[in-house]
Formats: sequence, structure tokens, C-alpha cells
Amino acid sequence: MAQAIISTLSKKYTGYSASIITVGGELLSGKYPNTNLQDISEYLTEQGYKVKQHQVCADDINQIATAVVRRLGQDTLIVVCGGLGPRHPDDKTREAIAKAVGSPLEIRDNVWVEIEQQLEKLGVYCDPSNRFQAMFPSEAKVISNVTGTAPGFSLNVDGSKIVVLPGPPSQMRLMLSEEHSIPPVAGMRELNYHWTLIGVSESKVGTMVNAFFDGVECDIHYLWKAPYIVVEVTTPADAPLSVQQLANFGAMFENELVSDCQMTAMEKLSERYRINWFTDDDELNTYLHTTYAVNSPLKSLSVNITAFPSINSFLSGEEMLGQMTLTTIDDEGQQYSVDFPCNKLLLQQSIPEYAAWSVLCARESKEEM
Amino acid sequence: MAQAIISTLSKKYTGYSASIITVGGELLSGKYPNTNLQDISEYLTEQGYKVKQHQVCADDINQIATAVVRRLGQDTLIVVCGGLGPRHPDDKTREAIAKAVGSPLEIRDNVWVEIEQQLEKLGVYCDPSNRFQAMFPSEAKVISNVTGTAPGFSLNVDGSKIVVLPGPPSQMRLMLSEEHSIPPVAGMRELNYHWTLIGVSESKVGTMVNAFFDGVECDIHYLWKAPYIVVEVTTPADAPLSVQQLANFGAMFENELVSDCQMTAMEKLSERYRINWFTDDDELNTYLHTTYAVNSPLKSLSVNITAFPSINSFLSGEEMLGQMTLTTIDDEGQQYSVDFPCNKLLLQQSIPEYAAWSVLCARESKEEM
Repeated sequence: MAQAIISTLSKKYTGYSASIITVGGELLSGKYPNTNLQDISEYLTEQGYKVKQHQVCADDINQIATAVVRRLGQDTLIVVCGGLGPRHPDDKTREAIAKAVGSPLEIRDNVWVEIEQQLEKLGVYCDPSNRFQAMFPSEAKVISNVTGTAPGFSLNVDGSKIVVLPGPPSQMRLMLSEEHSIPPVAGMRELNYHWTLIGVSESKVGTMVNAFFDGVECDIHYLWKAPYIVVEVTTPADAPLSVQQLANFGAMFENELVSDCQMTAMEKLSERYRINWFTDDDELNTYLHTTYAVNSPLKSLSVNITAFPSINSFLSGEEMLGQMTLTTIDDEGQQYSVDFPCNKLLLQQSIPEYAAWSVLCARESKEEM
Repeated sequence: MAQAIISTLSKKYTGYSASIITVGGELLSGKYPNTNLQDISEYLTEQGYKVKQHQVCADDINQIATAVVRRLGQDTLIVVCGGLGPRHPDDKTREAIAKAVGSPLEIRDNVWVEIEQQLEKLGVYCDPSNRFQAMFPSEAKVISNVTGTAPGFSLNVDGSKIVVLPGPPSQMRLMLSEEHSIPPVAGMRELNYHWTLIGVSESKVGTMVNAFFDGVECDIHYLWKAPYIVVEVTTPADAPLSVQQLANFGAMFENELVSDCQMTAMEKLSERYRINWFTDDDELNTYLHTTYAVNSPLKSLSVNITAFPSINSFLSGEEMLGQMTLTTIDDEGQQYSVDFPCNKLLLQQSIPEYAAWSVLCARESKEEM
């Protein structure tokens, strides 16, 4: 009972946590997407870790060392990626980790022999600076890199495991998944529930969903992917939502629930029908495209669609924000209208989705008959 | 003289610095790319700021507040993005900033009226939780959001300007560029020089480039975009590299310099020729595509290409790493061969670029005649 009260009060539960530190000045300039950050996050999440923080550092010993020290003892796992090359002054990660853990860099002769052999295979001149890539903090366990000359390493410090990987994405990915350096977390997995809602305001969803899950041990997140709000609820694996809770949630958003996953209306529509859109509004026509057969053979539908106000009159108005009604009627006579809030900047995203939603609602009422 | 010695010793120079904090649990899971981080970085870099750090926080007051406090007084500009919605428990940024700067949240009646008007325009139910979006730290200057109900705000604290923006990308971008909340930095701009090198090892480039710029006031970065190493050198605007330095740099990498910008060999080739590739090696054929006319009309060239060892024999070998020679001969008889280190994981990227490089080298020797 006491435990139940505590978990109700705390509400959030904790599992194995992780943080990710990527290193590189080129990432800070915004010139390149930080694909490693996303790839590592996704992998750790799949392995059962809760990623708590990302940090991107310049090639600077103090900045990297400080970032690592701040997470020591806080996270089960700290993944550091990038800055393991031989190229001073860019490659500072090795020294930064040595500084963070208070352990000097030492040459590993066996690793140096491997690097020399790799360079020989590649027919590449062995520069003295490559020797730096065979240096590791004294307690480090080396993670070999079969496709490059920058081995990674791992260390256990203050209750955290630090895993250090090179920045080139193909090398990083191979070492991340093959090296068993990041063991999957057993027995503490989470359950994730998603609901994709349309035509309801963020504030209303927030108020309703928070009230609905009051006292339930879970994390709730909202993601606004216009025109959708995706509600994500995470529970511990041993405390799933009940069938009744799921049914009640669906009933609460009866008119707004597009899917109980992350599928959009257009994705659902494309699974069921091949749609040919017809409209007298030339501008509206530019927002709509024939939906292609995902699972052919699909039923073909011709849909006539109108917007009120017309796209042109909305776009030529002074206001950025307004309301619109889309009416669809298909060649089997199924008609439906959706009213929705709209925003000049988001018409391109919103119109096809509301159009698809209108057709789905019309078909659903037919199919329920 | 003393100043010259100091700048030689310190080598790095500092301008207006910035850090970026993005907020959102969905970013930490790796499910979505963090496009805001890259967009804001790129914008700040264009405006003349040096971005020193990125951090991605969960929706957690303490984590966000700590991240902000750590940058106060360190950076000219701290941009915080996300977590300004009305949706508890996700939206913590407002409270976190109030905590970080020690200033309570207060309702701004005029902003609340604007939000109510916006919701009315959208035909959206005005939930009491929306009122939270009209609350700001007492000294904050409000940044209006014409396309959403989450205004941003800015504050000057301890020598840093904090700019807080909502997370939806279209709203963020509009407010970033239109609000004059982030003034361009005048008079401290940097000069950037790029060189794209092929067929030379990172370690050798690092050693040579560092020696070349020894004593020059600049930042040097290396980016490995297989099969290229891009060298980026940044100097203060008032200390450009001399024509002689640029010529000497080019001469140092006479055989490896693909471009003195970030153009690849394939990009350069596609600007000049329309290439039809021919080869007897079916596997090699799958790596090569006709280059399309970028600036038509282009000269057409037919190029016969061979790989030694063949792609199949390299891929079926046990080693991940090896060497390869590509030989190209075009229909005007220009022949060239390039030897290069190769890596099974990177053949897809490397082969077209080395093939293009071989053709360019062959044409260059013809055109020099």
C-alpha cells in the first residue's frame, strides 16, 4: 500500500538512463544534420534505455570533460561520439575522457599493431599522428573498429558506463550494434501507447489527457505534428493500461481519434483506397495528389472536394489564422464536412490530412450502416 | 608586438558566442530528427555568432533551468526552443526560465487578450490552460507569435541575452527571422575557407595542415565525408589569408585538391559533362549513374571504366579494408587511373567519387596541353 502511494505520488518511474554527447564543431555550425545523435538515441531507446539528455560539444577538452563529469553517477550509460581521429586540433575526445575520469592516456601496443596493419591494407601512409589513436585511459576496454583506424573504448566510472565511439556514421553504427558494449536492458522495458488526434486544441487535449491519467504510473508526452497532436503514454512493462482504460480513452476522443498508433488520416486512406480528387478550386487542387496504391489491388474512389472559404480568399486575407470547412463527396454518394482551424503557414500540411479525414469519416458512417 | 605574440599563442579568437537548448522528450527518443537545432544553428552562424554548445533537455524544470544557468555569462546569446505550449506536464520551459533567472511568472493581460483573439479566429475552444501561455518572467520582453498561441520572450541576464521560442518549426523559424530578437553581429564576422581533398589520409592531412597554419590566427576543422576530407579554416574578418598562403596551400595538395570549396568531384564533373558510363563489370555498373545536365547544354562524354580488383572479388574477400584501382578512358582517348583505400561499408559513396575524380584528372591533363 505504501509503495502504491509512493508510486502514485511520484508518478514518474525510472529505468536505466542514458545520455549522449556528440563532439564536433561542424555540428554546431548547423551545416550538417547530427544524424549520429538521432541514430544513437533510437538505438538506446530500442535497447531499453531512457535517454535523458543530449549534448553537442565543440572540439574542446574542457567542454567535453565537463559534459562527461556532469553525467557521471547520473546515468547508467554515457555514450560519447566523435573526436577520436588522429587530426589535432580537432580530435580532443580521448584526452577529454582521460581528464574526466582522472586516468592518463597510455599506448596499447597491440592496438597500434592493428592500426598499422589496417593502414597497410589500405595502402595508406602511416603518419606518426596515427599512434595517438592507439592511446586509451589506463582502465579502458578497447572496442575494435574493423572499418576504420579509430577504435572506441569503454570505462566504468562512478556507477556509469562510458562508451566512446568514433564519429563516421558507418563506423559508429557498426560498433554500436556489434560490440556488445551496450547490453540491452532486461526486465525494465517500457510500454508505449500512441494516439493520433485531429481537430482538437493542444490545451484541451492536455487538460483531458492529464485528468484521465491522474494517479496512473506513466509518462505523458504530446507531440504537435500539424495538424495532429500525437499523445504518447509510457508505462512500465509490468503495469500496462487495462483494456477498459484503452476503450475509455478511445471514447473520450471519439470524434478526433485518427488512429491508436502514429498513422495519419492520409496514411490510413492510402491503405484502403486509391483516391482521385476533383475540385473546381484550382488552388485547392495543387494541395491534393492522387493517393497511390500501397496494398494493391485497392478500391478506387473519385472524390469531389470544396473548401470554404476558398484557398485564394483565405491566403489573400490579412490574418495568418482562420477557419475553413472542407466538404467531400465520393462517387458512391458518401458526403462529409470537416471544420478546422487553419494557419497560412501550415495549409500545405493540413489540407491533405483534413481532406483524407473527411473521406474516412464519410466511409466509416457508410460501413457502419 | 605584444598583441601579436598573444594572438599567436592563443591562436583561437573569440567573437559573439551562442548556445542552443532544445526541449522535448520526443527529441531524446531519437524518433524524430531535431531539425530546430540545425535550423537555429545555421541561422545564428549566418548572423555572425559562434555556436559553442547544443543541449537537448527532457521536459524537466530542473534540467532546463540548470542548462540555462550554466550558460549565463558564458554566451552572448542563449536560445531556448520548445516547451512553451499549454500542455502540462510537457511544457516546462516557462517555469524553468523563471527559476533560472530568479524571476516569478506574471500574467500579461494584453498577451492573454491576444491569445483569446487568436483562439477565436481559429474557432478553437479556449481552455483555461491557455492562460498559462500569457505568463512570463517579470522582466521579459514578449516576442509575438502571429501563427500560434505560444508567444516567445527574451531577457537580458548576467551579460547574456536569453531568447525563448516555441517548438513548432514553422512558428520558430518565423519568429527567429522576423522578430529582430536576434540582432546580426556587426564587425566581428569570420572568414571561412574550405578545401575538399581526396585520396589522402586524415592523419597526413592533419599533420600537414596544422604545420602549414602554425602561428596563424585561425581555427582549423576537419570533416571526414567519405571519401573526402574537408578542411575548414576560419579567420577573423580583418585577418584574411593572403593570396600567397592560398596558392601555397593549393600547391601542397596539388594531387589531392578536388575543390577550394565544398564541391565534390561528381558535382564538378556534372557541371561540365554529361557522362555515360560503360563497364564490363556488372557489379561496378550498379554504382554508377548517368550524370544529369546541371547547366545544359553540356558536352557529352562516354567513359569506359574498370575496377581492379573487381567489386565482386573485393566484396567476397574476408577483409573489410583494402585497396582498389579505377581506370577510366573517355571517347576522346583521355585515360587516367586512381588508386585508393577502400572500405566495404563505403563503396557506395566512394566509387562514384573516385570515378568522377579519375575523369576530371584525365580531362585536366588534356586541357592543359
